[in-house]
Amino acid sequence: MKAVIFDKILKFVTDYPKPEPQKGEALIKVNTIGICNTDFEITKGYMGYKGILGHEFTGVVEEINGDNKSLIGKRVVGEINCGCKECDYCKQGLERHCFNRSTLGIWKREGCFAEYVCLPVSNLLEIPDTVKDEEAVFVEPLAAALEILEQIHIAPDKKVIVLGDGKLGLLIALTLNACGLNIMLVGKHEEKLSIAAQQGVKTKLLSELEIKKEYDYVVEATGSITGFETSLALTRPRGTLVLKSTIAASKEFNLAPIVIDEITVIGSRCGQFAAALRLLESRRIDVKPLISDIFSIDKAIEAFERNKEKSSVKVLVKVD
Amino acid sequence: MKAVIFDKILKFVTDYPKPEPQKGEALIKVNTIGICNTDFEITKGYMGYKGILGHEFTGVVEEINGDNKSLIGKRVVGEINCGCKECDYCKQGLERHCFNRSTLGIWKREGCFAEYVCLPVSNLLEIPDTVKDEEAVFVEPLAAALEILEQIHIAPDKKVIVLGDGKLGLLIALTLNACGLNIMLVGKHEEKLSIAAQQGVKTKLLSELEIKKEYDYVVEATGSITGFETSLALTRPRGTLVLKSTIAASKEFNLAPIVIDEITVIGSRCGQFAAALRLLESRRIDVKPLISDIFSIDKAIEAFERNKEKSSVKVLVKVD
Repeated sequence: MKAVIFDKILKFVTDYPKPEPQKGEALIKVNTIGICNTDFEITKGYMGYKGILGHEFTGVVEEINGDNKSLIGKRVVGEINCGCKECDYCKQGLERHCFNRSTLGIWKREGCFAEYVCLPVSNLLEIPDTVKDEEAVFVEPLAAALEILEQIHIAPDKKVIVLGDGKLGLLIALTLNACGLNIMLVGKHEEKLSIAAQQGVKTKLLSELEIKKEYDYVVEATGSITGFETSLALTRPRGTLVLKSTIAASKEFNLAPIVIDEITVIGSRCGQFAAALRLLESRRIDVKPLISDIFSIDKAIEAFERNKEKSSVKVLVKVD
Repeated sequence: MKAVIFDKILKFVTDYPKPEPQKGEALIKVNTIGICNTDFEITKGYMGYKGILGHEFTGVVEEINGDNKSLIGKRVVGEINCGCKECDYCKQGLERHCFNRSTLGIWKREGCFAEYVCLPVSNLLEIPDTVKDEEAVFVEPLAAALEILEQIHIAPDKKVIVLGDGKLGLLIALTLNACGLNIMLVGKHEEKLSIAAQQGVKTKLLSELEIKKEYDYVVEATGSITGFETSLALTRPRGTLVLKSTIAASKEFNLAPIVIDEITVIGSRCGQFAAALRLLESRRIDVKPLISDIFSIDKAIEAFERNKEKSSVKVLVKVD
């Protein structure tokens, strides 16, 4: 089958073996794939992953190895973390923190950047009829945005600022705004900010923002250490900084403001899919304006190149 | 008067002008002073402070500039942050976060390392008769230890580990243990750990600790960036890391584990004195074994030297 793999270099191949579903797994014919910055990070060595890339997809269930066949023929999305089902984390629905987990296209499990992918049936959710594949493929990053509200309660009168107008920052801003919060999105790209502004989000260019410790909640989604420093400088004493992007400080870095201002820094990663699908179905946010380009899987390498360009937001890939 | 000042270098002087209490302030004859690592940091340039050092003291109120004279002649300790009394922080009793605060011997206010010190009467608390000066002088760092429990709730069945067996780590361990929590103190110095062990704290040498993500709460009190990294490696996914020491990363530093494991890092600084005085009065902890040496103020420079030695815990200074 066709597949995009990473093994020292990024490759598009046409002769990759079609996967076989293990007991309890479904074989899914992939329809739409989203490129995430994590895919790009993997091509730079992140997690030491080798194999088929990709963890954002929609597809149709073709085969199930197990008793419950009800999802065969259905359009689905799939939660990307597969846990042991026995540890305390799995029992709480937190497979994403299972010490023995595998993660689609990231850790110990072949990804979805191919014609077919396998996942446990219990990871799958049916896509509502009114939600298109090009929308449903956003469920994974949208769940990551909603994860913030799974972790903490933000009262609607609190001042919230989101830093970073990349795909993640935009989805977070749209999501928190759709949940009635008092938020502002700050970034460096007028055209990206306008995607959120058109859906009612207050936005501001970073260059026009007064850096003052006045926000109750600051969401860091820039992925840079200077973004983290700016986030700290915007968080009021006893406020909360939500860290959404995995950052490595490449320079001397002062943690003292966290202590002096008694700031809470909370790391936030994957979320649950059901709430994200509900949000898409409700039409309270529109993810389609985030799509910069749609490529065929035959042009996957070009799609990765497009994803690297600063002007792109979300790059999708279609499998026919 | 005699005073220990920092102005480019640390100096002991005998001709410093005696302070005059402003409206609402008390003039306090100082009895006992504690040396804190912050004092040492100031002598290296921290906060850019110049003037009389010191923020841990006990003394007797000699004069009050204002109506309420009831504290005259009483033994007192004093909260170190002086707020504007009008902002939202001050109104919540969080003067320590007032944007216009001064802080005794640290920021815009002469410290207590002298024969006399002035503080607002509203900052003072009378020392109970059963608590000696050598104990009460621990109220400020003890309040900083108790601050953790002012910020977060730690249930008694949760696993708590405190990293660092310096003065702060020891006080935190004693305090959390006295509050019935399931804690372990880890450090590098057997003789310091034994101070806590003798009061019922479980202790372990760092070299004998298995580094595993299994603690619900990790308190970082080592003051080093490697200590912070170890703390991250001990915090279970979705766990909490309490950052008590102001750290500057002097090397490349990876924040990704905070996001991947969705860890909450909570900065924690000063606390309120009343709870700390109560704890001392209750005799549920004994701070006296932490006292390494007591110097006369005439030997203050020697006291600072002693404080630098790894073998010392708390160094006190007496004013006669």
